[in-house]
Amino acid sequence: MKIVRRVSELRDEVRRARARGAERVGIVPTMGALHDGHLSLVRAARRDGDVVVMSIFVNPKQFTESADLAGYPRQEAADAALAESAGVDVLFAPDAAELYPDGFATTVHVGGPLTQTMEASGRGPEHFDGVATVVAKLLLASDADAAYFGQKDAQQVMVVRRMVADLGIRTRIVACPTVRDRDGLALSSRNVRLSAEERSRATAIPRALEAVEAALALGETSVEALHARAAAVLTAAGISPEYVAFVDERTVRPVSEIADPVLCAIAARVGSVRLIDNALLALPDPTEEH
Amino acid sequence: MKIVRRVSELRDEVRRARARGAERVGIVPTMGALHDGHLSLVRAARRDGDVVVMSIFVNPKQFTESADLAGYPRQEAADAALAESAGVDVLFAPDAAELYPDGFATTVHVGGPLTQTMEASGRGPEHFDGVATVVAKLLLASDADAAYFGQKDAQQVMVVRRMVADLGIRTRIVACPTVRDRDGLALSSRNVRLSAEERSRATAIPRALEAVEAALALGETSVEALHARAAAVLTAAGISPEYVAFVDERTVRPVSEIADPVLCAIAARVGSVRLIDNALLALPDPTEEH
Repeated sequence: MKIVRRVSELRDEVRRARARGAERVGIVPTMGALHDGHLSLVRAARRDGDVVVMSIFVNPKQFTESADLAGYPRQEAADAALAESAGVDVLFAPDAAELYPDGFATTVHVGGPLTQTMEASGRGPEHFDGVATVVAKLLLASDADAAYFGQKDAQQVMVVRRMVADLGIRTRIVACPTVRDRDGLALSSRNVRLSAEERSRATAIPRALEAVEAALALGETSVEALHARAAAVLTAAGISPEYVAFVDERTVRPVSEIADPVLCAIAARVGSVRLIDNALLALPDPTEEH
Repeated sequence: MKIVRRVSELRDEVRRARARGAERVGIVPTMGALHDGHLSLVRAARRDGDVVVMSIFVNPKQFTESADLAGYPRQEAADAALAESAGVDVLFAPDAAELYPDGFATTVHVGGPLTQTMEASGRGPEHFDGVATVVAKLLLASDADAAYFGQKDAQQVMVVRRMVADLGIRTRIVACPTVRDRDGLALSSRNVRLSAEERSRATAIPRALEAVEAALALGETSVEALHARAAAVLTAAGISPEYVAFVDERTVRPVSEIADPVLCAIAARVGSVRLIDNALLALPDPTEEH
């Protein structure tokens, strides 16, 4: 595995790989602090392509809380070892001055409902500008055929898909299933900051999603009723969520009945750690045998 | 010359040309109403490259006055003939729904001093967002090695250069000299809307720039004094300019003395037509013989 720090080096690596016959280049954009969720993205990229690039960049533009940015875990040596063992060919680990040199002045902004709901309130309106800008840069720098993102950050995937379609960036966006620990908690680099007691309470988030899915499977399609199921599970664990949202999977507009595929997304602080999780809800297939 | 209306067709044409051995693709983005200024860009692209793409798209996002958008001259058949005779290989003439389909939500915004001065006041703050967004889309759609712009729109060139550098779009930006009519007026698609009397008065704009250059050549480096020369020429023609700006050529910050290269830019309405022009000022080379 080659580690490069500069955009020009990344371009050279990709160009050389293509000259050697590589046809499909995949990129896994990360902020480091790798866990098995990231590695599942690498494995997906490995299956699809000839060359796997991973970027590790704690993007200051997408943090709106300086404490969150400062406290974000950084462990490059350990990350590099994990990346290499999972099959990364090129690790791109630039510093902030490489991606945002003096005089940098451009923002890629995705407007509309997509960035006015859910994470926009919790993370601030600039969060998704930071995401869209850095992802545009990473896709263009890597000239990737496909980019792999975790479905855990469902709204981020939607924003990236919108941006890529709107600007005509040729990279295909692939969303991979959320990876969970045995206790059901979605893997997140922020989980390490949970105490044992917080960790135990945090499992109420995936349990709330399961409660919603179970009720839907039994025929409950009212969002008001499903919301109450989720809230009950969270409340029992002493968790007061930032939001429990039921939105149309494509438009992110709130829905009141489950008809078309609906994203149920939860954000909550447990102690000082902000966690998110989601499930894609669909009506049970009436033709399916039980 | 092939005329295509869809991004996918443009991509196919460029891909086919590269497969046939074309190494350098140039694009000349225009809003149509072609004049010899545009054709000089085509000739530059023709000299540099194997394939010349021209886009014709009256971009609604960069118009902040609906009357200017509605009144912008549209003459596609005549433009196509001119483009073909100048050596365009592929004419890309999409409609607005092709570049901005339903749900389009992305804006490329260049911030900072570059977009807070000169044309930002005359054309509104969204003007350069519209320019940056459509140019990003055109460069990515054409996968061009070089793009050709007229130096007449000096600030536009600066904004495009900034955006391309910041996002890491691989296209080289080439600025070509302003082309002028015999009376000195910079060619512009808007000139056709001038009456004969207005046309005659409008020549005060290039004459004001010449007066500045002449004074500088004689050793006058004070911007206050140079500004007065320009203002005198304009006033004599009954023109009250929107701005006569002297700005650092790289930062667009106002200067008070000519030392480093300075852009002198003028915007003025003559009748109902808004015209711009500029000159790049540099100190006379003291080593040059006279």
